[in-house]
Amino acid sequence: MVKNMKKSMQKIGLSGLLGSKKNVEIIDLIIKILEKENREIYIEGKLAKYSSQFSKYSCSSKKIITNCDLLISVGGDGTMINNAKKFGIKGIPILGVNLGSLGFLTDIAPEELESHLCNILKGKFNLDKRFFLETKLNSEILNHRSLNEVVMHSGAIARMIEFDVYVENNLVYKQRADGLIVFTSTGSTAYSLSGGGPLIHPDLDIIGIMPMFPHSLNTTPILIDDNKTIRIILTKINGKQKSELSFDGQNNMPVQEGSEISIHKSEKQVTLVHPLNNDYFFGCRSKLGWGKSIVN
Amino acid sequence: MVKNMKKSMQKIGLSGLLGSKKNVEIIDLIIKILEKENREIYIEGKLAKYSSQFSKYSCSSKKIITNCDLLISVGGDGTMINNAKKFGIKGIPILGVNLGSLGFLTDIAPEELESHLCNILKGKFNLDKRFFLETKLNSEILNHRSLNEVVMHSGAIARMIEFDVYVENNLVYKQRADGLIVFTSTGSTAYSLSGGGPLIHPDLDIIGIMPMFPHSLNTTPILIDDNKTIRIILTKINGKQKSELSFDGQNNMPVQEGSEISIHKSEKQVTLVHPLNNDYFFGCRSKLGWGKSIVN
Amino acid sequence: MVKNMKKSMQKIGLSGLLGSKKNVEIIDLIIKILEKENREIYIEGKLAKYSSQFSKYSCSSKKIITNCDLLISVGGDGTMINNAKKFGIKGIPILGVNLGSLGFLTDIAPEELESHLCNILKGKFNLDKRFFLETKLNSEILNHRSLNEVVMHSGAIARMIEFDVYVENNLVYKQRADGLIVFTSTGSTAYSLSGGGPLIHPDLDIIGIMPMFPHSLNTTPILIDDNKTIRIILTKINGKQKSELSFDGQNNMPVQEGSEISIHKSEKQVTLVHPLNNDYFFGCRSKLGWGKSIVN
Amino acid sequence: MVKNMKKSMQKIGLSGLLGSKKNVEIIDLIIKILEKENREIYIEGKLAKYSSQFSKYSCSSKKIITNCDLLISVGGDGTMINNAKKFGIKGIPILGVNLGSLGFLTDIAPEELESHLCNILKGKFNLDKRFFLETKLNSEILNHRSLNEVVMHSGAIARMIEFDVYVENNLVYKQRADGLIVFTSTGSTAYSLSGGGPLIHPDLDIIGIMPMFPHSLNTTPILIDDNKTIRIILTKINGKQKSELSFDGQNNMPVQEGSEISIHKSEKQVTLVHPLNNDYFFGCRSKLGWGKSIVN
Repeated sequence: MVKNMKKSMQKIGLSGLLGSKKNVEIIDLIIKILEKENREIYIEGKLAKYSSQFSKYSCSSKKIITNCDLLISVGGDGTMINNAKKFGIKGIPILGVNLGSLGFLTDIAPEELESHLCNILKGKFNLDKRFFLETKLNSEILNHRSLNEVVMHSGAIARMIEFDVYVENNLVYKQRADGLIVFTSTGSTAYSLSGGGPLIHPDLDIIGIMPMFPHSLNTTPILIDDNKTIRIILTKINGKQKSELSFDGQNNMPVQEGSEISIHKSEKQVTLVHPLNNDYFFGCRSKLGWGKSIVN
Repeated sequence: MVKNMKKSMQKIGLSGLLGSKKNVEIIDLIIKILEKENREIYIEGKLAKYSSQFSKYSCSSKKIITNCDLLISVGGDGTMINNAKKFGIKGIPILGVNLGSLGFLTDIAPEELESHLCNILKGKFNLDKRFFLETKLNSEILNHRSLNEVVMHSGAIARMIEFDVYVENNLVYKQRADGLIVFTSTGSTAYSLSGGGPLIHPDLDIIGIMPMFPHSLNTTPILIDDNKTIRIILTKINGKQKSELSFDGQNNMPVQEGSEISIHKSEKQVTLVHPLNNDYFFGCRSKLGWGKSIVN
Repeated sequence: MVKNMKKSMQKIGLSGLLGSKKNVEIIDLIIKILEKENREIYIEGKLAKYSSQFSKYSCSSKKIITNCDLLISVGGDGTMINNAKKFGIKGIPILGVNLGSLGFLTDIAPEELESHLCNILKGKFNLDKRFFLETKLNSEILNHRSLNEVVMHSGAIARMIEFDVYVENNLVYKQRADGLIVFTSTGSTAYSLSGGGPLIHPDLDIIGIMPMFPHSLNTTPILIDDNKTIRIILTKINGKQKSELSFDGQNNMPVQEGSEISIHKSEKQVTLVHPLNNDYFFGCRSKLGWGKSIVN
Repeated sequence: MVKNMKKSMQKIGLSGLLGSKKNVEIIDLIIKILEKENREIYIEGKLAKYSSQFSKYSCSSKKIITNCDLLISVGGDGTMINNAKKFGIKGIPILGVNLGSLGFLTDIAPEELESHLCNILKGKFNLDKRFFLETKLNSEILNHRSLNEVVMHSGAIARMIEFDVYVENNLVYKQRADGLIVFTSTGSTAYSLSGGGPLIHPDLDIIGIMPMFPHSLNTTPILIDDNKTIRIILTKINGKQKSELSFDGQNNMPVQEGSEISIHKSEKQVTLVHPLNNDYFFGCRSKLGWGKSIVN
């Protein structure tokens, strides 16, 4: 698979957010490397507008989807998630270049950019497939896919909802809580981690469920096989407001009392490209402050 | 103090929510006991309307505030919190009668009602003072007081805000989180407990602070003296929406980026009336399921 | 596989601990069912001695290992773990009959015994394979295998050790803690759960690592592929005492400063026999008190 | 009180552990400052032996106890705890100078030593009283006092004990767990923090209780008034070994099944001396890594 990839890594797309003007030079560096290696360059319009240097490569997202063999996502994990849903889901492998501090998905730092990118263009890389969650609301498949998590929430602070959680047709529990997080291995370093969830190595394909502010002592995250479907029956909403579903913290939609939300692994996936010898735990240590002692 | 109370427990108010019609008989029982003991009875209009039996004692909230020596709060902890803010804060001691399962604040169960109420009317009781939190938004004192907690929240699921927390003028930390809970000893069995906070005996007057879904490993609840002021500077809101303040989960109000929220103990307090020998930990065991083993 | 099993479930062993004499009648019932179904019965000596009824079937463990197609483990999860290591590891499938409350591994309660056992003898059952952890101390394979967990511990209360944890050759972190728990999916309902670890469905083959009382904010359980090796270098022991390794809480052995402990999945496994339609989450709910609310 | 202290801060003791020879210069600096300010110097024998410079001031612990107005504790929090029990409990205020990284009790770093010490000698300081826990085993007062915590533990890894916990005469709960931590506000930054306990500001005088690896879902730390007595009845020990009591992780003693352990605030206390404007939360931030984000 790596060999096939190598042959085809001729047409390279760029998409992302610069954040600050000074990052223009990082994009400049990427372009110079790609030009030197004789690759065709496609820069998505909204990124291309940052500099006249970029504009000659400016193109539409559609053109990138139709043509490119690799997308370089420039920005943080949030940008990567957007690009995974726009380009990755269409089958284009993505390499994440982080402009600031490292992310969990964007693991090339600016200072290593040149050596890593050259090696990757030479076909020296690892591929890492990540699955999406797909959500049905009352049997209708929703457009929003999630790489990290689906959150069902009361939509108000400290106002609980009641719901039943099933794995396939087996009742897991009845909960009264602010909400429920259904997360992937990829998402285990995102929202669920903030709530005390475990860290799941991305080699494992797992779906986790975890209540938010439960009105019971039952707070344990539960991990199940990614081939199982999680079903949630929203049995009671207190007050007048609707509850909400949130997808990777980016899209919200209302849900009514009595709704059934069904979450399962999508057939679509995104392929991440990593440098060889990429060390997952190195990223965890630097991003999670694992080296820090309580008391010396 | 107990003696003074005894003398004055002549005029008794009732307020609350019945929930179900069958609870009418509990109110009936309370009325019979009060009549037998020759007390003056004042039933708040919205409760009095449940039965023609009650209507002869129907009166306005104002009349209860002006006249009564004791309020009997009929309902759960939520009803008690409302009554604490309506009647308790005006200096009327409150006795909580729970119609369903026990609450933390409403500790008389229907089956013990008769013996406990008679004893209390004879002056055999304990008093238990609980403080309110008062909140200032940009130096302006807000109307909403909190018996349990003030919550500052981003107002959206999995969308973080950034804020600095001070105790008096000392920086505690800078946080990036969904929100922050500032809770009282009374509130330690409410929302903060759902988030993993400690249980604080009501004899202790303490203010606790605890982040919600923090984007750091710093999740430890911090407990400080109730005479200190907690100040929060809301330094950054992502996206367009406003953040929110919530008071005991009952009132919400928007807050803008740059706001300073200042929380301190109010001079007002509520006095709860408990039967003699009331056992706080008995309530905890029955309400929190402490007897339940993981594995036998 | 189920069919092959059916043919061969002719010779049935029994092993376990009675705890109380009144449980003799449960064994009696098992024997009657087995006699009625014309099975050969082998009762391990230490169990057989409880009743003269049993003694005609008394035999050695060796004879059970050589002959039996199924072992019925009579007792709780602790008894099952012992039997898994004595009989299961030799290839004999095990059915757990719980004499008291349900366990996670022994899922047949006395009152369902008759119907479940008859169905199982008719070949109506599910098989459930669980892996063991194997431990090397300084390259030497230890005799003690673990179904639940390996614990490395300072051997004293509140006295920390320092160690480095690797997954294969990648450093996970350097820790200063009382110890480390390396647990299996099976063990996720045992010791690691008491320490706040996640619940892992037994369909998933996962190894988890979790520090005990870490002197850092890094307490997150980490879950990895069961084909990876966990290596621990015990870099520092404070004080004079040796640290300890513990296997399923049953065997302890000392370890010295500088030791390398290496933990990986054993090639050996145990096959558990469950009734059809056995519901894992039903067991969780009843054993973990998931139905219990904090506040009503 | 500050004034009285000032007058009497004439005779200064030093006690501690140097750890490394290079710390000799820090002691040298302290001595020079004290000589310049015309104070009488008393260096405990085991510290004095590190350098011939120190030996002229060498004396016994007894002499320090009889004479000194202030003890400077040189080392980390562990050294401070030892000195609190040796000197502080006899009424000598203690100033902690940390040779390495900051501690929670030893809050003067080497680089600030000169300015802080001079100010303190001029009478510019704050006093901070911390209480000890005193323990009775079956009605007999033990010699070991605790500044941080008393731990009752099964004495073996993953082997539980059963015990009942009372506050005064009120049952809190029956637990099956590895052990129980009874901690002070001072200890809230020590062992209990590693177990997930809350951080308690030292202005608050609180006793906390927290189970270790409980076999129930009841893990919540409970905080009570420091004037209450915690009583523990050790109802069951599994296996043959004795359980253990540990005091600040420094002294261990065996306890038998059936024992009653009773823990209450000692009348003795230690007075810590802090520089003016000492910021408790500054120490927390630097020691606990509160500034560290999960994801940037």
